[in-house]
Amino acid sequence: MVRADGKRKLHRTVEFDSAKNRVLLIEQRLLPHRFRVVATKDFRATAKAIRDMVVRGAGAIGATAAYGLAQGARAYRGQDLLGFERHIEVVFRTLQDARPTAVDPVNAMIQVRCELAAGDSVVARQKLALAAAQAFADEDVRHCEAIGRHGAPLICEGMRVLTHCNAGWLAFVDVGSATAPLYAAQSKGRRFHVFCDETRPRSQGATLTAWELAQQGISHQIIADNAAGHLMQRGEIDLVIVGSDRVLGRTGEVANKIGTYTKAVLARRHKIPFYVAIPLSTIDWVMRAGEDIPIEERSPDEVLGAWGVTASGRRAWVRVANPSSGARNPGFDVTPAELVTGIITPAGVLKPRELWKRRADLGWRKSGALRTSRG
Amino acid sequence: MVRADGKRKLHRTVEFDSAKNRVLLIEQRLLPHRFRVVATKDFRATAKAIRDMVVRGAGAIGATAAYGLAQGARAYRGQDLLGFERHIEVVFRTLQDARPTAVDPVNAMIQVRCELAAGDSVVARQKLALAAAQAFADEDVRHCEAIGRHGAPLICEGMRVLTHCNAGWLAFVDVGSATAPLYAAQSKGRRFHVFCDETRPRSQGATLTAWELAQQGISHQIIADNAAGHLMQRGEIDLVIVGSDRVLGRTGEVANKIGTYTKAVLARRHKIPFYVAIPLSTIDWVMRAGEDIPIEERSPDEVLGAWGVTASGRRAWVRVANPSSGARNPGFDVTPAELVTGIITPAGVLKPRELWKRRADLGWRKSGALRTSRG
Repeated sequence: MVRADGKRKLHRTVEFDSAKNRVLLIEQRLLPHRFRVVATKDFRATAKAIRDMVVRGAGAIGATAAYGLAQGARAYRGQDLLGFERHIEVVFRTLQDARPTAVDPVNAMIQVRCELAAGDSVVARQKLALAAAQAFADEDVRHCEAIGRHGAPLICEGMRVLTHCNAGWLAFVDVGSATAPLYAAQSKGRRFHVFCDETRPRSQGATLTAWELAQQGISHQIIADNAAGHLMQRGEIDLVIVGSDRVLGRTGEVANKIGTYTKAVLARRHKIPFYVAIPLSTIDWVMRAGEDIPIEERSPDEVLGAWGVTASGRRAWVRVANPSSGARNPGFDVTPAELVTGIITPAGVLKPRELWKRRADLGWRKSGALRTSRG
Repeated sequence: MVRADGKRKLHRTVEFDSAKNRVLLIEQRLLPHRFRVVATKDFRATAKAIRDMVVRGAGAIGATAAYGLAQGARAYRGQDLLGFERHIEVVFRTLQDARPTAVDPVNAMIQVRCELAAGDSVVARQKLALAAAQAFADEDVRHCEAIGRHGAPLICEGMRVLTHCNAGWLAFVDVGSATAPLYAAQSKGRRFHVFCDETRPRSQGATLTAWELAQQGISHQIIADNAAGHLMQRGEIDLVIVGSDRVLGRTGEVANKIGTYTKAVLARRHKIPFYVAIPLSTIDWVMRAGEDIPIEERSPDEVLGAWGVTASGRRAWVRVANPSSGARNPGFDVTPAELVTGIITPAGVLKPRELWKRRADLGWRKSGALRTSRG
């Protein structure tokens, strides 16, 4: 979606170079100050790029893991299917462990693994793996476009919309989940204003979402995460829309970036609609309770300082906090279904509790719900 | 309270050099990375120090304004009382306008102005002004000590306490309001753990509160403002205690650093006690509704970046946010009385609605409630 470097080239967030067997990723840690595409040389480098947040966001790391699995499959040098399958298992685990809270990588890789099993040789399975990864990436884009169609009617003329973290096209292969209804409403000529939570500690709202919205020419302002409650009190927010890293299909609970739960609690108090936009790969059909979702504890350094650009234009990390103090840094939280007005899916806007009833339309079987023992 | 520079000298946050007619302030914007005391040369410089947040915090800017009024009074070169009073009015307004949300400076200066009126000459009034300012500062310390005595029983062995922003000794002349019960409980040998909200955009929790607690040897961790909701969900917070910049004596509403309201809403949802600790100078007896409290809108730059220290030890501001994006930056919010479990005052722990009934014990007349037309 981005037109970078004045070259007017359209980039997807995640692409694959099949000739060199490399995954191509926009280096998101440098945005918005610098635009660069990096290539991971093998599946371990791909897993590291996910873990280190070169690439982040539900659909984006789903596609990256799918490509990473294909990349690992294609690097296998041998003809024995048993050895190949053992290798695939190592690749799968390595990529899965990179970010424990998100379910998209798992669902994406299950799709790839199911598809490749139809091949009767290593070479055939390698080809099927890449085709399946590409199909996942293409489906992610179609899902986000469908989210845009279903969500656009929620964005009315003059609305003030709050979003948290980045669930834009940078968090997916393209288009985005939470941003899809915004982009679709804009294309219909509707005007509205977006408040971007800065989303400490990694500031994806201030950097990535603000950058996306600025590129799209959408009116927006960044706010401290502390400010949304006050704005709601003063009647300055009409709607909240966020993405998710894992929605439980059985309960409608929503894992998303730390701070999402707080916004949901505030929205409920102020009777402001709170929507979650997700492609089908974000639904976890296996896990039975939100409290079982693993919450990633990230490095204290993220809380103790900030990355930015100095007056001289140099990228630098500054330590903000007292030098002798430590930090807790849970990366995600879980919002109960009762606080969620609706889930905007590619199949329509549903109540959280409707997911399970509608599971046949929502990729329940396809995601491999019956084939994995996750959770 | 601080022992700085290895010299073991005890500093108050705000002091007065009567020989040079200067207010002495700890330069809080440099903490925790550097400790420096600055002197303001006249009342305009004192007002600027308040506005620019060299000094911040309810009692600290109250004492600074009181000293600033005395400083301005003492700089008057003339003998006519009418000219002196006109000058005092200018000094009063200049200091009052520096931070509109806080009421302590107004209450402090009303006390000074009432006291000095008893003098029958300019010289007599100048002396009375300084004595009154010193009395305010001393009373602030006694009030915080009393808050500690009344609040200490709330801090039980093993508790996990959340605090927001800095309401420690740096925010007062000494001891602090929200920290006073912690320090008092510690002196009784009780052990507990404090979570410090980092408190974006100015990070007073990560810098000032964490520094204070580290100096006192109190177990603590900094968290992103986004994280408290998750910790409450997981049962990891037992009590919330914050300070305030203005508590309405008629309604019990609490203005405090942006984000406080959010924590109060979360605490209520999780049935966690939420306390506000204040000296009497923080009570506004005049204003009738929280929505009338002026909410300071501060510079967008605070939200768009962060101050810290680089790897080479240099103090620097980095721009975090997308360069072409702007920000909203309300500095305070208002928490309704219904969300406040209790107000810890120098006269005891009261329900917010009890303030008005107990006004005779709470400095209602002394603060000049009947003599000002504020609000």
